[in-house]
Amino acid sequence: MTLTITAFERSPDGGKGLARDSRVRWALEEVNQAYEVRLVSFQAMKQPAHLALHPFGQIPTLEDGELALFETGAIVLHLGQRYPGLLPEGAEARARAVAWMFAAVNTVEPPILELTMARLFERDQPWYADRLPALEARVRTRLQQLAARLGDADWLEGAFSAADLMMVHVLLRLRSTGLLDEFPPLAAYVARGEARPAYQRAFAAQLAVNTRAA
Amino acid sequence: MTLTITAFERSPDGGKGLARDSRVRWALEEVNQAYEVRLVSFQAMKQPAHLALHPFGQIPTLEDGELALFETGAIVLHLGQRYPGLLPEGAEARARAVAWMFAAVNTVEPPILELTMARLFERDQPWYADRLPALEARVRTRLQQLAARLGDADWLEGAFSAADLMMVHVLLRLRSTGLLDEFPPLAAYVARGEARPAYQRAFAAQLAVNTRAA
Repeated sequence: MTLTITAFERSPDGGKGLARDSRVRWALEEVNQAYEVRLVSFQAMKQPAHLALHPFGQIPTLEDGELALFETGAIVLHLGQRYPGLLPEGAEARARAVAWMFAAVNTVEPPILELTMARLFERDQPWYADRLPALEARVRTRLQQLAARLGDADWLEGAFSAADLMMVHVLLRLRSTGLLDEFPPLAAYVARGEARPAYQRAFAAQLAVNTRAA
Repeated sequence: MTLTITAFERSPDGGKGLARDSRVRWALEEVNQAYEVRLVSFQAMKQPAHLALHPFGQIPTLEDGELALFETGAIVLHLGQRYPGLLPEGAEARARAVAWMFAAVNTVEPPILELTMARLFERDQPWYADRLPALEARVRTRLQQLAARLGDADWLEGAFSAADLMMVHVLLRLRSTGLLDEFPPLAAYVARGEARPAYQRAFAAQLAVNTRAA
């Protein structure tokens, strides 16, 4: 059965690996599944053919036979349930890993996205300097809490799992802000994720797309 | 096996049902499971005992025997996998319902939270009037896309499911803004959710807590 994902024809980050298709590529590499990529332009993302796959006109999507999925959390979870390598054995450990996946996208990512969006799009606004400290404080709170829970562990729930895949990729977006470096255990955690061969292959694949596009 | 959740000793919304314990209460009512509630103060939420249950110091949590979970999406998914009544039969329909659960908390909720937080905490800031239109526009885009996908259907994925539970509760937070009423099919969708007896019981239970606290 062919697995097909969608990705940006030309990523807004120019190939830094921050677009969300990287999460799905990484998951596919961790479970050793070959996949095809259909590149979509910003214009095509808002057209009916793509909206049928993704109601909110974003990437990535996954087509797995008759099944079409959107939302990286759901796609990574689906791959983890279908193939070994991404989720712990045992219903309870698996449920805890799912909790971390939701925490990554619902509790940690939103303040990070708000901060990075402000840095990109509000820098010239008169209120930027006044808002920035509050945005950074929200992110720091989450990082401090995450670092406290991680402690000396390498990964969030036993061995590396989809929980770490999602969390590491969410944290990667912080690199350009310098905030990650304020929490050395988290910077090391992210580096452990990036050092995985599966991540390296995923990163190289998205970079190749964006190098060709440039 | 006793199921125990945590909830605010005194909810910031005074009992309007917008705190996230309502999602878990609603799910428990849909699957007809009795549960106990441990109320926590804002101070207790930041103490080690609660942080052991919830690394980010929030509510709700679920204790199910030895298993402790946080994140409403993960808790509702766990209940849906454990008891009938919240998830469709069949792996593919179930995966699509999970995609909507992630979409609710990762794609629809963040702009709604930003808008409602700005309305609460930035109203007196000099930039409020300048930022508000952009915040509202982000929410409208999501509502328009969601309404387009829902179309004439009653629910997002076949019969009522955890997908709708999560999405309806995320949308409920918009009521005070008036934005929901710009999309009558979505206002009707939310009303269908609120009309469910399980939701009514969950709402009454959280209201009783907050009435006693007041």
